[in-house]
Amino acid sequence: MTERTRFDLPQDRIPSAWQNLLPVMAGAGIQLLPPLHPGTKQPVTPDLFAPLFPEQLILQEVSTDEWIDIPGEVIDVYGLWRPSPLHRATRLERALDTPAHIYFKYEGVSPAGSHKPNTAVAQAFYNKKAGARRLATETGAGQWGSSLAMACSFFDLDCLVFMVKASYEQKPYRRIFIETFGAEVRPSPTSTTQAGKKILEENPDSTGSLGIAISEAIEVAATNDDTNYSIGSCLNHVLLHQTVVGLEAKEQMEMAGEVPDVVVGCVGGGSNYGGLAYPFMADRLRGDRPNMRFLATEPAACPTLTRGRFAYDFGDTGQMTPLLPMYTLGHDFVPAPVHAGGLRYHGDSPSLSLLVREGHMEARAYSQNEVFDAAVQFAKAQGIVPAPESAHAIRGAIDEAVAARDAGESRVILIGLSGHGHFDMQAYDDYLNARLPEVEFDPAQEEAALARLPEVPIG
Amino acid sequence: MTERTRFDLPQDRIPSAWQNLLPVMAGAGIQLLPPLHPGTKQPVTPDLFAPLFPEQLILQEVSTDEWIDIPGEVIDVYGLWRPSPLHRATRLERALDTPAHIYFKYEGVSPAGSHKPNTAVAQAFYNKKAGARRLATETGAGQWGSSLAMACSFFDLDCLVFMVKASYEQKPYRRIFIETFGAEVRPSPTSTTQAGKKILEENPDSTGSLGIAISEAIEVAATNDDTNYSIGSCLNHVLLHQTVVGLEAKEQMEMAGEVPDVVVGCVGGGSNYGGLAYPFMADRLRGDRPNMRFLATEPAACPTLTRGRFAYDFGDTGQMTPLLPMYTLGHDFVPAPVHAGGLRYHGDSPSLSLLVREGHMEARAYSQNEVFDAAVQFAKAQGIVPAPESAHAIRGAIDEAVAARDAGESRVILIGLSGHGHFDMQAYDDYLNARLPEVEFDPAQEEAALARLPEVPIG
Repeated sequence: MTERTRFDLPQDRIPSAWQNLLPVMAGAGIQLLPPLHPGTKQPVTPDLFAPLFPEQLILQEVSTDEWIDIPGEVIDVYGLWRPSPLHRATRLERALDTPAHIYFKYEGVSPAGSHKPNTAVAQAFYNKKAGARRLATETGAGQWGSSLAMACSFFDLDCLVFMVKASYEQKPYRRIFIETFGAEVRPSPTSTTQAGKKILEENPDSTGSLGIAISEAIEVAATNDDTNYSIGSCLNHVLLHQTVVGLEAKEQMEMAGEVPDVVVGCVGGGSNYGGLAYPFMADRLRGDRPNMRFLATEPAACPTLTRGRFAYDFGDTGQMTPLLPMYTLGHDFVPAPVHAGGLRYHGDSPSLSLLVREGHMEARAYSQNEVFDAAVQFAKAQGIVPAPESAHAIRGAIDEAVAARDAGESRVILIGLSGHGHFDMQAYDDYLNARLPEVEFDPAQEEAALARLPEVPIG
Repeated sequence: MTERTRFDLPQDRIPSAWQNLLPVMAGAGIQLLPPLHPGTKQPVTPDLFAPLFPEQLILQEVSTDEWIDIPGEVIDVYGLWRPSPLHRATRLERALDTPAHIYFKYEGVSPAGSHKPNTAVAQAFYNKKAGARRLATETGAGQWGSSLAMACSFFDLDCLVFMVKASYEQKPYRRIFIETFGAEVRPSPTSTTQAGKKILEENPDSTGSLGIAISEAIEVAATNDDTNYSIGSCLNHVLLHQTVVGLEAKEQMEMAGEVPDVVVGCVGGGSNYGGLAYPFMADRLRGDRPNMRFLATEPAACPTLTRGRFAYDFGDTGQMTPLLPMYTLGHDFVPAPVHAGGLRYHGDSPSLSLLVREGHMEARAYSQNEVFDAAVQFAKAQGIVPAPESAHAIRGAIDEAVAARDAGESRVILIGLSGHGHFDMQAYDDYLNARLPEVEFDPAQEEAALARLPEVPIG
C-alpha cells in the first residue's frame, strides 16, 4: 500500500573499485592539460609531489586506468555509513505539483555529515601505510577538517587542521567537533608558518581564507618529514575517491527503474559533484547516454564556472601549488562571506572545468536568498535541513522540476545532497530574519584578480 | 573479505503495528496502577484527556490490545528514514579488547537527529485527522521540539513550542532548527500563560524547567479549542509509538544471528529506552527469554530510577497533570544543569518504573565525566558523535563489555543509540577542557522535594 521512496543497497554492494573518468575523457578526445611547476612553468613530474603525498595517491593522481581497486580496509570503514541512501523526494514533488521525478543521493548520513569522508578515509589509509605520522590540512566551513580528523582517528594518525580564522570564530561547534576526534585546530593565518607570518605582517587582523590555509598546511608538510599534506577537493585523486557516490547512485537508480535526465550538484572544488556525476558522465562520453544533462550549481558570490576564466592558476593564495588548468576567479579573489563556505574557492577541479568548457556540463549561479528558499522548502517537505552548499543543488533541481511542470513534460532529476546543515543554523537564522544581502559579487574585484593571473598560455 | 557490520532492513519491512507491552505485563501479573485526578485523587476517566488529546491517542493510552496498526500515512513518513540501521561496533570491540559483541540501533539518522520523530509523526497525524489546527508542547534539550515541529510541517499543522529558557539561550541552533520548520518558539516561563506569569511573579529571572514548560503548553491546549497538547515521553501512547525501534532491532539481531544478553538504553521519561526494550521485554515476561537483562542508564544529577521514590506524583511543576505512579525525585526537584537535558526529568514512565520495581530491569546512574569518556571513545572508534543522553547508554555498554572481558566470557550487548550530538558540541568542549563538575547531586534537595510529594497511598 505504502509508496517506495528509498532505494537502499546492502553493505556488500559498496563499490569495490573507484572509477577514473580521465581515460574515458581521453577516449572522447578531451585531454587534460598537465599541471605546471609554479617556478619554471613547465609540466610537473610526479616526484614534485613526493614530499606532500604518499606514492599511491600520486599514482592515482596521474593514473590512466579506468578502475582502481578500493582497499578492503577502506571498504570496512565505508561500511560505517555506506552505501548511502537514495531517496525519491515524493513529498517535494507533490509540494511543487510537478510531473518530474526527483531523487536525491544523501551523503549527510556519514558520521561527519557530508561526502568528505569518502576521500578522507582513503587518504588516511594510504598515508598510514606509507609511514606518515601526521596529516596537515586546511578547512573552511569545517566539513573537510571534521572528516579528515575522523579518518585520522580511525587509522591512528595525528591531524593538524588550519581552519580559516573567520570560520574558527563563527563556527565553534565545527572546531569542537574536529577536536573531539583528537585533532589539533589552529586559526589561520597563524604565526606558526612563514606563509601565515607573511600575511599577519601585512594585515594583523586578517580573518584568513582557504587559499592562505592551504599555503600554511602545505608548508608544514613540506618542512616536516613525518607530516604529509591532505586536500579535500579539486585534485584528480580526490574526485576519484568520491566516485563511490555516483557508482552507488547508478545502481540505486536502476533499482528505481529510472534513468536521470539531469544530474544536479553543487561545486566548490568539484569533488562532491564530480563524485556523483562522473560515473554517469562516463556513459555520456561513450555515447550511451548522449542526452543526459549535467547541471553544476555554484554561489553567485563565487561564480567560478559561470563568470571565471579558463586559465592556468595557482590553487592557493601563497602561490606554492602547481598551476592548474581550470576556471578561476584569480588566486587572490576573496568571495563575499556567504554561508556556503565550502563553495568559496576561486578555482575548480581541472577535469570538471574542462567538461564545462567542452559543453558536457551546464553551470548556474544562485544568490543566497534563492538558495535558502529552496533549502527551507526542501526541509519542510522531506525533513532534512540541508547544508547551505547542498542547497544550491536543491535550488537547481527545483528549477528543473518547475520547468518540467511548465513544459508539461516528465523529467527525472537526480540531486547530489552532499550534507546536512546542523552546523550551519546561523545561516538559517540570518535567512529567516531577512538578514542576507541580495548582492554578493563585486565584478571590479574579479577583474583585478584576473589581471593578476600568471601569464601562461593555455590550449 | 570485508566484515559485515550493518544489518539493514528494506523500506517495506518497517513494522506495520506497534507493540503494546501493557497486556503482556498484565499477563505476567504486573498491573499498572491508574493515573489519579490531580484534585479528587480518584482514578481518572479517559474523558479528562479529551481537551488535550485526540480520541485515537486516548484510546491507545489505555488500550489492552497488544498490537495496534500503524496508519499507512505514518508508515509513509517513517520511510523518510526508517528502518533505521543496526550496526555491530566491531571497531569499539577491538578498542576495548573485549570478547563481547556490541550492537547499536541508531536513531540519529532521523532528520531531527533522534528517536523523537517516531511518536511526533504519529501524534501529528492523529491530531490532524481529528481536526486540530495547532499543537502546543514543551521542549528541554530541543530534540522533542525539533521533532514535533517537523511532524507538524508534514501534516500542515501549526506548532507552538515552549522551550525551557535556559536551553533557548544556550542552544540557539536548536531554536533555529525548530523555527526552520515554521514553528513558533517561546522561552519558558513566558508571560503568555497564567502558569508562566505565576512563576515570573515569584522569580522574574527564572530560567525555567521542563515541569514549568509542560504547565504552559497544557494551559494553552486546555484554553484553546483549536489547539491540542503533545508530549514527547512518559505516557503509554508515546512509548507505544517508539516500539518501532525495538521491533526493527529484533529482526535485525536475527539477521545478525545473535540474541542480546543485555539491552542498554538511557532513560529520561522512558520513551527511548521503552521503545527499544519493550519488544524484547515481551519475550522475557512471557518466559521465552527469562535471562535477558535490561539496563536503564540515567544521569547521577537526576537519578530517578536509582534514588527516587516509587510514588504517585505530578508530571509537572504546576501540578496540572494527573498523578502518575512512578519513580520520582519530587515534581519540584530541579536537577543540576547537566548537558543531557533530555534526561533532566523528575519522574519516569509508569510502566518502565514498574518494571524496575519488579526486578525486570536494572538501573545505573553515571556522572558526566564518565559519560563523556565513553562518548569520545565511541566517536573515535565508530565516527558517530553521540548525544549526551545517548552517551549514558554507551557508558553502560562499555562497562558491560569490560565486565565480559574481565570475566573472560562472551556477551551480546545491544545499545539504543537514540541520537547524535551535533547540537551539543558545547558539552564536548566543556568535557575536553575539564570544565565538568564531578559532583552533580544534592541529596538535601531531593529529601525536601520528596517531602512535598502528594500524600496518596500506592500499592
